[in-house]
Amino acid sequence: MPGLMQNAPLNIADILRFASVAHGGREIVSKNIDEPIWRYNYARAWTRAARAAQALSRLGVAPGDRVSSLAWNTHRHFELFFAVPGMGAVLHTANPRLPDEHLVFTINHAGSKVLLLDRNMVEIVDRIRDRLETVEHYVLLSDADRTIDGWGCYERLMASEAGDFDWPRLDENAGAFLCYTSGTTGDPKGVLYSHRSVVLHALAAGLSGALNFSAFDVVMPCQSLYHATAWGLPFAGAINGVKFVFPGDRFDGASLQQLIVDEGVTFSGGVPTIWTLYLDHLARTGETPGGLQRVIIGGSAVPRDMAVTFDRLGVVVQQIWGMTETSPLGVVSTPTPALAALGKDEENEAIWTRQGRMMFGIEMKIVDEDGRDLPHDGEQSGALMVRGPWVLDSYYRSDAPAINADGWFDTGDISTIDRFGFMRITDRKKDVIKSGGEWISSIDLENIAAGCPGVKVAAVAGVHHPKWEERPILLVEPHAGSNMTGEDMTAWLEPRIVKWWMPDRIIIDTVPLTATGKIDKKAIRDRYGRVLAEPAA
Amino acid sequence: MPGLMQNAPLNIADILRFASVAHGGREIVSKNIDEPIWRYNYARAWTRAARAAQALSRLGVAPGDRVSSLAWNTHRHFELFFAVPGMGAVLHTANPRLPDEHLVFTINHAGSKVLLLDRNMVEIVDRIRDRLETVEHYVLLSDADRTIDGWGCYERLMASEAGDFDWPRLDENAGAFLCYTSGTTGDPKGVLYSHRSVVLHALAAGLSGALNFSAFDVVMPCQSLYHATAWGLPFAGAINGVKFVFPGDRFDGASLQQLIVDEGVTFSGGVPTIWTLYLDHLARTGETPGGLQRVIIGGSAVPRDMAVTFDRLGVVVQQIWGMTETSPLGVVSTPTPALAALGKDEENEAIWTRQGRMMFGIEMKIVDEDGRDLPHDGEQSGALMVRGPWVLDSYYRSDAPAINADGWFDTGDISTIDRFGFMRITDRKKDVIKSGGEWISSIDLENIAAGCPGVKVAAVAGVHHPKWEERPILLVEPHAGSNMTGEDMTAWLEPRIVKWWMPDRIIIDTVPLTATGKIDKKAIRDRYGRVLAEPAA
Repeated sequence: MPGLMQNAPLNIADILRFASVAHGGREIVSKNIDEPIWRYNYARAWTRAARAAQALSRLGVAPGDRVSSLAWNTHRHFELFFAVPGMGAVLHTANPRLPDEHLVFTINHAGSKVLLLDRNMVEIVDRIRDRLETVEHYVLLSDADRTIDGWGCYERLMASEAGDFDWPRLDENAGAFLCYTSGTTGDPKGVLYSHRSVVLHALAAGLSGALNFSAFDVVMPCQSLYHATAWGLPFAGAINGVKFVFPGDRFDGASLQQLIVDEGVTFSGGVPTIWTLYLDHLARTGETPGGLQRVIIGGSAVPRDMAVTFDRLGVVVQQIWGMTETSPLGVVSTPTPALAALGKDEENEAIWTRQGRMMFGIEMKIVDEDGRDLPHDGEQSGALMVRGPWVLDSYYRSDAPAINADGWFDTGDISTIDRFGFMRITDRKKDVIKSGGEWISSIDLENIAAGCPGVKVAAVAGVHHPKWEERPILLVEPHAGSNMTGEDMTAWLEPRIVKWWMPDRIIIDTVPLTATGKIDKKAIRDRYGRVLAEPAA
Repeated sequence: MPGLMQNAPLNIADILRFASVAHGGREIVSKNIDEPIWRYNYARAWTRAARAAQALSRLGVAPGDRVSSLAWNTHRHFELFFAVPGMGAVLHTANPRLPDEHLVFTINHAGSKVLLLDRNMVEIVDRIRDRLETVEHYVLLSDADRTIDGWGCYERLMASEAGDFDWPRLDENAGAFLCYTSGTTGDPKGVLYSHRSVVLHALAAGLSGALNFSAFDVVMPCQSLYHATAWGLPFAGAINGVKFVFPGDRFDGASLQQLIVDEGVTFSGGVPTIWTLYLDHLARTGETPGGLQRVIIGGSAVPRDMAVTFDRLGVVVQQIWGMTETSPLGVVSTPTPALAALGKDEENEAIWTRQGRMMFGIEMKIVDEDGRDLPHDGEQSGALMVRGPWVLDSYYRSDAPAINADGWFDTGDISTIDRFGFMRITDRKKDVIKSGGEWISSIDLENIAAGCPGVKVAAVAGVHHPKWEERPILLVEPHAGSNMTGEDMTAWLEPRIVKWWMPDRIIIDTVPLTATGKIDKKAIRDRYGRVLAEPAA
């Protein structure tokens, strides 16, 4: 018996349409590349998105076509987030931090007809342009005064359009965003978000158990817009009518602090590296974080001293976990009454040491090596499996399903789930260290090592060992000016870990990072993979 | 180009499933009919819902079948909200306040196979049983000790089931709830909610611009569960892990106050009548509203002195507007920064005098008599039209669409929309008073009259007038003990309204109410429709 409610499809453009009428005067501020600061509001953003859609139509972009962006966190990129899917095309948010060959691969694999780029991406595009097979138009996301001859200009194209675009009503399962994983092995893989997945994700992300946005929030996304749509913030924010502050490409501490104070930022988010720089800036200048209330941190685990420092400054730190394959929000660490009843210390402990709590829409379980469900006791760890309406089904242009017969996607993470519904990553499946048949969590070991005074980054990898199969080695990058030694680290670790977890080698060196700012374990294994196979020096 | 995300249908049972794992220990309290208070939690509610689904299957309920409930706000009714749709059947929440012939009509029209009823509905069912054409099983929602011979017993049926129900994965467009409008003219009309409409409504309702629920809230629904699923509170609450307090059938001030204080209620909602009784209780006893933070009020406009009194007690009053046809939330009055910037007085004025602000998912416009869009200037009023994924498409067992070709549903209300996105009902289309070609808003006039000291309820209706076509008459029901007169009212109105709005007759009498507690304008017109046609006494 079918229900008798309206068959109104979930469309991404409706989010901005709603904000333009319900929060029309709410401000959007953008620090663009080499331009004065830009200010407008949702009502004007909606008209400009319409003009962008008209301009792209005029360039020949049709429903189903792909359009690539190579752009930072600006209002123009934000407009494209609605214009391109809204016209029925697919926005591929290319990642400028990828190695050239991967960047070329993603744009060719997407088959994009138009590439829109920021001024400071010109150097990259000049370098790879000859290898781009499908791009017909290159458009600079700069204002008309600062464009460069030989490139299309977004603002000039917009200026010829009336803004009366007739937004189509799209099938909610149509593709909307194409985001590539930056896997360290093999070619990047594309995840094709649908209108439905993006809108459902935005609704769920706004709830109090997740991002808890209100119209009084001032949100500055410091996760790149090209990373899984900046964790969906542009959509969750607009649905709730927040004021947006886009920091452009300036993620250094001083630039962020200026926007936080001048624009009254209440909420921000990004990878730990950005917040390390920000806290360094505050420590150096003695400044305070203004009206900043909350920071969500994802991409890798939050170092404890970062959480403690923010706490002292009156800023709540929330971890999140997700993947490009999960749109990306999987869990967000938010408190519950049961947890609060245990006292502030235990609550902080849970919030700071777990990736987050289950949110409606993402089913989650852990399984052992034979695929059997494991209990949610916070102790036993297993392969983390997820499913739900914003989890991928298969990768773009891949015939193989990415999920099992019951719809579960294997995240590649090893985790625990506790009785409060909190999930804690203990390792990437490929990083777990198998020592004599037992597992050592590289992440747990890194977190403990990172607490040692003087440590900037600590990285643990399992490398081949002639007797134990694998043993951990620890790479330590000290803070500038610190003269810590391997002996200091050994002394720090000894009382804090079981004996057989002690790394077989502690190396003071720079820690290699991936294009997304995570520790590049593959590079570490490539460089140090044989150190234990040979006789110790 | 289709997106490549999972095709995971939105299913109502998944809301309780989620709450049972993410908020498993969160409490649910229920004041049942003639039973001791009941306490359990989401984890146990999920198991009991499974057993209820098994028990109903055993009675022969199959997917697509209808099941009627005649029940108050209890944990058992809450369980049925998940068990019945979750098994693929449709729950018809019958309204015991309807006249017998309408109640009989709805159950027959639904074609329900099973009727589940509270103990104190036995008298009604005994009266109408002979006229029910499709009901095969009658089941009392009482505990095993308090059942009545000759009736099925919910708890006994549950006791035989294991709770390992295999919940089906349902098409999200399948019917889930059948709610009848209690129109004062003609037969009640059925609105058939789908799984999709209920889940989307629950997600949007939880957002901060709507009900703004968190896991720390303690929610006591005082709107009947049979009224448009208690405005969707069971779903929006469970998605956010609130503690629920179900008041049974006791909506008197003393009973509510006891639960508010004992259970730490932070949030409640219902029609104005209930809150009048509650505030009377506080005034009489000198008690305070404990930890109560917010009350949402809908069904009819909030009297200003009620809002002022709650404000003084530290309780935020939010109006909402909706209809059975809109699941029911259409607008909720929540503040925005633009409004807050005008100062507390102006913010309160907007919140208290407007039905609410636009929420994501419901498009809204006002049109003139020729169907042309009117501006959102807060001044011009027109027919209020809505559309969106939780607005009906057509009525149950009706061939005619209930919406126009563009998907707009004519609400039958006349309203304004202002630049802040706030909607204000100025009248029901059928209640608007057409005096000499000009419109008089019966609601505005009622609100002003209700502010006169001594007034309990004020009702305005347009009745036939030989010269002006229609003129307003005012029916005033004074508070017990008040000796106010028609002259007092005239003196109150004179400085507050334009001269031609002055009612032609002011009558001190009881105000007739409908089955849903609203002013019954039809009854007033029936009784007084000719008073102005005849020579004044």
